[in-house]
Amino acid sequence: MQQLKERILSDGLVKGDDILKVDNFLNHQLDVDFLNEIGQEFWSYFQDKGVTRILTIEASGIAVAAIAAQYFHVPVVFAKKVESRNLDEEVYVSKVYSFTKDRSYEIKVSKRYLQPSDRVLIIDDFLAKGKAVLGLKDIIEQAGATLVGAGIVIEKGFQQGGQALRAAGVDVYSLAIIERMKDGKIIFA
Amino acid sequence: MQQLKERILSDGLVKGDDILKVDNFLNHQLDVDFLNEIGQEFWSYFQDKGVTRILTIEASGIAVAAIAAQYFHVPVVFAKKVESRNLDEEVYVSKVYSFTKDRSYEIKVSKRYLQPSDRVLIIDDFLAKGKAVLGLKDIIEQAGATLVGAGIVIEKGFQQGGQALRAAGVDVYSLAIIERMKDGKIIFA
Repeated sequence: MQQLKERILSDGLVKGDDILKVDNFLNHQLDVDFLNEIGQEFWSYFQDKGVTRILTIEASGIAVAAIAAQYFHVPVVFAKKVESRNLDEEVYVSKVYSFTKDRSYEIKVSKRYLQPSDRVLIIDDFLAKGKAVLGLKDIIEQAGATLVGAGIVIEKGFQQGGQALRAAGVDVYSLAIIERMKDGKIIFA
Repeated sequence: MQQLKERILSDGLVKGDDILKVDNFLNHQLDVDFLNEIGQEFWSYFQDKGVTRILTIEASGIAVAAIAAQYFHVPVVFAKKVESRNLDEEVYVSKVYSFTKDRSYEIKVSKRYLQPSDRVLIIDDFLAKGKAVLGLKDIIEQAGATLVGAGIVIEKGFQQGGQALRAAGVDVYSLAIIERMKDGKIIFA
């Protein structure tokens, strides 16, 4: 998606060789009109897949998933990361390791909101080593639902997540794939 | 908002005298078409206030804020709750006590995304004792920006948040105010 690549080049901040900050439109501040362009792009690609539910993970996946869901007219479910007293007891659980935060955490989805008949599209802001998406895939499989694909805003192509997911047969559609980052420069695949 | 009250009555689960779960459209699963109705309602009320930015708090405030922002055509900024390696060092910080989770946490907003010229609308899913909104208000004041009001989906009128905020001069617009909950029943104000 050309518009996204231009936005990453103009607004992205590179830290070292592996951290890209896009805080001003995707991860802290949200450019909602631009997120609509992104949502439409996911719709264009996945519109014929019979999606019945979109699954994402809190927190920064929520906005892009909610905006995209408007084109699909399906509910969004966001997996919760932390123990919460208000969360349903009947949950699917998977464990995810975060390289950014250097710790493991559990993600949970209530059994009420994933049915075996569901055709689920995963949407997330970033794909790096793919642990979050693998955790969501695990939960979809626990529910007996069908994973139709993963819509990713920015994929770090130099990490192994995209490769692993595609090898596992997941239809990963990333709107921008970064081949590498070096000396503050971003090179797209 | 009559439609919201009906939805709370049909889908809300009451636990004890103070916990209301609306997980199937607002807090875990998101009914995006319905969130658009909510967003339009906030727009109707605050449209003349010259809002330049919407401020919310992760995680469950993000969806309703992002959907509502489409009517205002302004960016959303969501305050982050946890220490994250990727967060800007230059941040406003406030401390918030969560009764749901029975612990204090810090919320942070990058100084890049709140300017003294900003007219900020706070949007959040729930208002109970008001600690989260007070933390956001504190951050807006640190930035020297103007708080134009708070759009709340569900206010627990039997707790003190709404009263405290209105006494402090905040224009709080809650789409549904619950007077009390008893024996699984919900009584609106």
